[in-house]
Amino acid sequence: MTQQNPQYKKVVEYIMSEIENGSLKEGSRLPSEKELCEMFSLSRQTIRHATGELEKNRVITRVKGSGTYVGDQSRPRRKPRYRSVAVMLTYVNSYIFPPVLQGISNTLNNKGYSVSVSFTNNDIEREKRTLEQILSSDKVDALIAEPSKSALPNPNMNYYRMLEKRGIPVLFINSSYPKLDMPCIRLDDEGIGYEAVKYLISQGHRDIAAVFHCEDLQGIRRYAGFDRALRENGIVLDPEKVIWLDTAGVSDLDPLMDYITKRISTATAVFAYNDEVACQLIRGFNRKGIRVPDDISVIGVDDAEAARTAEPPLTTFPHPKAELGIMAAQKIIEQIENPLMKRDHLFLPEIIVRDSVKNLNKEEK
Amino acid sequence: MTQQNPQYKKVVEYIMSEIENGSLKEGSRLPSEKELCEMFSLSRQTIRHATGELEKNRVITRVKGSGTYVGDQSRPRRKPRYRSVAVMLTYVNSYIFPPVLQGISNTLNNKGYSVSVSFTNNDIEREKRTLEQILSSDKVDALIAEPSKSALPNPNMNYYRMLEKRGIPVLFINSSYPKLDMPCIRLDDEGIGYEAVKYLISQGHRDIAAVFHCEDLQGIRRYAGFDRALRENGIVLDPEKVIWLDTAGVSDLDPLMDYITKRISTATAVFAYNDEVACQLIRGFNRKGIRVPDDISVIGVDDAEAARTAEPPLTTFPHPKAELGIMAAQKIIEQIENPLMKRDHLFLPEIIVRDSVKNLNKEEK
Repeated sequence: MTQQNPQYKKVVEYIMSEIENGSLKEGSRLPSEKELCEMFSLSRQTIRHATGELEKNRVITRVKGSGTYVGDQSRPRRKPRYRSVAVMLTYVNSYIFPPVLQGISNTLNNKGYSVSVSFTNNDIEREKRTLEQILSSDKVDALIAEPSKSALPNPNMNYYRMLEKRGIPVLFINSSYPKLDMPCIRLDDEGIGYEAVKYLISQGHRDIAAVFHCEDLQGIRRYAGFDRALRENGIVLDPEKVIWLDTAGVSDLDPLMDYITKRISTATAVFAYNDEVACQLIRGFNRKGIRVPDDISVIGVDDAEAARTAEPPLTTFPHPKAELGIMAAQKIIEQIENPLMKRDHLFLPEIIVRDSVKNLNKEEK
Repeated sequence: MTQQNPQYKKVVEYIMSEIENGSLKEGSRLPSEKELCEMFSLSRQTIRHATGELEKNRVITRVKGSGTYVGDQSRPRRKPRYRSVAVMLTYVNSYIFPPVLQGISNTLNNKGYSVSVSFTNNDIEREKRTLEQILSSDKVDALIAEPSKSALPNPNMNYYRMLEKRGIPVLFINSSYPKLDMPCIRLDDEGIGYEAVKYLISQGHRDIAAVFHCEDLQGIRRYAGFDRALRENGIVLDPEKVIWLDTAGVSDLDPLMDYITKRISTATAVFAYNDEVACQLIRGFNRKGIRVPDDISVIGVDDAEAARTAEPPLTTFPHPKAELGIMAAQKIIEQIENPLMKRDHLFLPEIIVRDSVKNLNKEEK
């Protein structure tokens, strides 16, 4: 099978991005059909397919004998029916969800929306019950959802598709399901894995271990960036030192510390899936008399509260937290008003350097 | 993005399957264009696209003024250039590869092919080196490959695509990469996970744990079947009792036995990813004084040698081993002669009942 993006979609996406970045403003005239044909080397029929879809979704308006204009001149934008948005979180990274939820709630409340929250605990059975409830009560305009175990097969996909069919847009945060064509606001996980390794290498590390989470796509993506950075620097990844843990494993590293320590024993640095893992590693190392960063460096992701109070304080990539919540709220309102507004957004945060990574270059001088 | 299977491909696949199952024999006449148009409700242009592709690949021959016939009347089938096939295995399940390799070698040797073997040890770096070597030496007609860590992002996809572009067909065994449209001969892993749980339930078990491998698609697929069977029987999966291990973890369970035992403590049965895991679990339980099957039942996959000598002997789903090897050899010859012959084959073996699963129904009587 081949993945195909129909030609007309390119035109739709181009016009949407021109509107989003402000090049095409409300009320301004669209390029003519002929101009679009030439611009994309496409037939008039394909261009009409694209503008037809945009018109159907009230993004543009055709005015007879005049031209096509941005915005819906004749009819109002789609209006929310209930002014209510459901938010479904996993609760897994309990140090992230409060500011994210606050960002979502404040922004939506300010726009007159109520917000109902539920938690799945990263459990697909609970996810199913929540989705069933949303579908049966039929009282929300949209859903902001954090997926449960996005790297595993999930039997709940049809519930999401049913929501979309009913005109209830879905926006994912932190991760999304590969089988669903729905927008997502998340960290650039691949980029973070890559930047973390690049930073460790800049500090003289080459024997680099990692602890990843295998049930969420975040883990798979951070691994991909981790692997790419090693490769680009001529370092061959040692699978023995790349440890994969499941949800229960990640949430309680204590019974695994002996095992982990043995597997990564020669490494000078370890990239932790997130700060929850990183802080547990640091505590575990401390108890064993392994000094961070003198014996081993640790780097995390998220900038959790615990990252700042860790001993030593943790070098990490900050999750945008409230900023992500605010953007999710803004995007879901856009989607409610215009279901075509389906765009991903990725955050690639800059590293916060604290004291958990040793500079090996200095040592040699 | 949407996954699309072009219309004409349906026609190609239909004709190929009719030839494969013997309904359309060599030399027999194909339905007319008009008949095919009606059969598929497709335009004549689309039907011609399909028959054109089949003719290009010498599956059918158009005879002017007469009709279209199965088989290549005018030209010989594509001939192998080197009579040589490369076989790349992971070596991970060392108890499976000898009979598989024997099945492949014997069949290919009998047909006049030489076989060159290499092992990746489930390491993508070694996989890369092997593929580079095959590409640079340019001395094989085809490749039979077992993927390395098929559930993780893999940077070697372009090597496989280059092989295909050079006219060197690739056939995967045991698993395949989701990003490549190449045929695969493997176990019906989802079906096995499903059947294993169904069997355990038939024996009165409802509190069922599992140990899966997270880096290979076999693990993800067996989990999907495991989960589906529980659901269909109204049992809610307890994530605490579904343990995911990486390659190093699966190959040496000893340092993890305390941890695993604690997580699955209340379960009456455990589904093991394969017999390697199952036999290690049984040995570990024996050492701890946990009796199999009186205290806990164990079920595996593969029917490894060790499954028969385990104490107690292991109930398991047999891997077709030599049979899979023979079929792989036959299929790769078909692919060499006709690159269109790209069909998957799944084996769903029947359970071999030995003594590692307790019948809880009997107990209650």
